[in-house]
Amino acid sequence: MKKFINRVDHFLAESLAGFAAAHADLVELNLEPVFVRRKTATPGKVALISGGGSGHEPLHSGFVGYGMLDAACPGQVFTSPTPDQMMAAAQAVDSGAGVLFIVKNYSGDLMNFEMAAEMCEAPNATVLVNDDVAVENSSYTTGRRGVAGTMIVEKLVGSMAESGANLEQCKAFGDHVVKRVASMGVAFSSGTVPAAGKPTFTIGEDEIEIGVGIHGEPGRRRARIAPADAIADELLTAIVDDLKPAADAALLVLVNGLGGTPLSELYLLFNSAHAWLRQRGFTIRRVQVGSLTTSLDMAGASLTLCSLDAEMMKRWDSAVQTPTLRWGR
Amino acid sequence: MKKFINRVDHFLAESLAGFAAAHADLVELNLEPVFVRRKTATPGKVALISGGGSGHEPLHSGFVGYGMLDAACPGQVFTSPTPDQMMAAAQAVDSGAGVLFIVKNYSGDLMNFEMAAEMCEAPNATVLVNDDVAVENSSYTTGRRGVAGTMIVEKLVGSMAESGANLEQCKAFGDHVVKRVASMGVAFSSGTVPAAGKPTFTIGEDEIEIGVGIHGEPGRRRARIAPADAIADELLTAIVDDLKPAADAALLVLVNGLGGTPLSELYLLFNSAHAWLRQRGFTIRRVQVGSLTTSLDMAGASLTLCSLDAEMMKRWDSAVQTPTLRWGR
Repeated sequence: MKKFINRVDHFLAESLAGFAAAHADLVELNLEPVFVRRKTATPGKVALISGGGSGHEPLHSGFVGYGMLDAACPGQVFTSPTPDQMMAAAQAVDSGAGVLFIVKNYSGDLMNFEMAAEMCEAPNATVLVNDDVAVENSSYTTGRRGVAGTMIVEKLVGSMAESGANLEQCKAFGDHVVKRVASMGVAFSSGTVPAAGKPTFTIGEDEIEIGVGIHGEPGRRRARIAPADAIADELLTAIVDDLKPAADAALLVLVNGLGGTPLSELYLLFNSAHAWLRQRGFTIRRVQVGSLTTSLDMAGASLTLCSLDAEMMKRWDSAVQTPTLRWGR
Repeated sequence: MKKFINRVDHFLAESLAGFAAAHADLVELNLEPVFVRRKTATPGKVALISGGGSGHEPLHSGFVGYGMLDAACPGQVFTSPTPDQMMAAAQAVDSGAGVLFIVKNYSGDLMNFEMAAEMCEAPNATVLVNDDVAVENSSYTTGRRGVAGTMIVEKLVGSMAESGANLEQCKAFGDHVVKRVASMGVAFSSGTVPAAGKPTFTIGEDEIEIGVGIHGEPGRRRARIAPADAIADELLTAIVDDLKPAADAALLVLVNGLGGTPLSELYLLFNSAHAWLRQRGFTIRRVQVGSLTTSLDMAGASLTLCSLDAEMMKRWDSAVQTPTLRWGR
């Protein structure tokens, strides 16, 4: 295992410490229990909290800040955060308008966020994200997995909360957005969990895993390496079959790197996706390309489509000021 | 070779087309000859042009926009752009105040930019970046290589040009900045040039290349994999020995991923660098962490220190609006 690491059991703490030191203008790191919170709160707004296993950076900590999350609770690598992290985060960032938890659909995350929600004294609600169309149930999941589309939910609901919407409105909007987001990924290589010290799965020199999960969970099929156009075709066919966007839908396209794939290839994959969608008469209105929901050092990428209505477009464009996304302010 | 690619000889064109389509609000792609230019020019300012072999994305195209470059000329992968690209870019973006070429010190780049400068009808000057302290001469270089520090030069000089400084002032400021930037990198794996189809160099399962170049050029030594703290120590010792920042220097620290290394590890490496610098009494005033000057899919990272004076700090903080860097506007 070759990683920038000192000790396996210090990986998360040291990575988070570096993150917090690098972005001390925007975020603060709380220890015991661990969570990342905004440096500057917006008084009186609904507090948005997300979290999940680490190894997917910049998700979720990189999206803490103005216009997105109020706090993020990182678990150990590929391990759910604990209810005490979520409760402490809620207590720290609730300013009286209640707390909205944004949860990716994994059994452990869901159970722990549910426990936190029950014990949380503030009024609260949960938005469950399950955008991965690859498989119906999976290794750690009943129902579909939550993957890269989660950052779109966080951005859109974050904007709505920032504008003063109440808890009920934020929850309803979040549920609305979730229904309009669909994703699917492909792996060229497996990531390596530091504590395991070896790749999560083995894959041949000329093989790819189509529909892979962000923890290396199996997808739909193991295939021979194929041209980018063919990969985009398989992913987008599955996504469009599921999402069924209207012919005149305003699409947000997210090309997400899984950690080990450089930007030059992600742009090439976007070029393939762009051609595929245009050939079928779809209109791309917004684009995001980058490694935003990773699986440690996995090589590969996912595609996400989000069908934007006017409100969602406005929320996507609104100002955001986080370590990872910054625009319009 | 597993990459998002359709045909080896279409890699650059398709990646650039995807880039330009994704960022059509900020940039335009010119074909025959190929260059990327700002969508919206600032009239009457000195035009900044950079370029170099592709494979280092987002350098340079990702830094075209308000407050940074006016145009970027991408060559084929690891191959210098040609003088006709540079001349066409200069003609397109010169608005009467002259052209400043920002060139990484590689023999091919230097020769072609010199030819373009000679033939260019507009008044022009060149800033040569040679921030890599690892080796004095190298495979493609007489003198030190230009690496990740280049984006700092582009940001700072870009801000000065945007504020209305003339060509002489921009050139002098660029030369001043170059003297205050030093970098060194380490590779865990080799990138794979699409046309070659196999890694540029071989490296053992437990080996790293300390001082590697951004084309996979040899560095100072081949070593056993070491803890992040030890790697940071070796890189920073070399950088500080060369840069000799004053004890009260205001440092900008850039942790740059080489393409195949995820953000979580870059933050951990920053944590190591942060501790190292603080232990020696240095003050970190600005931080940038990300994969900004890559070597295709190489796993590894580089560290860059820049010793900021008051003018440079102001120029770093000023507004920038490019596909890759955005703040303050």
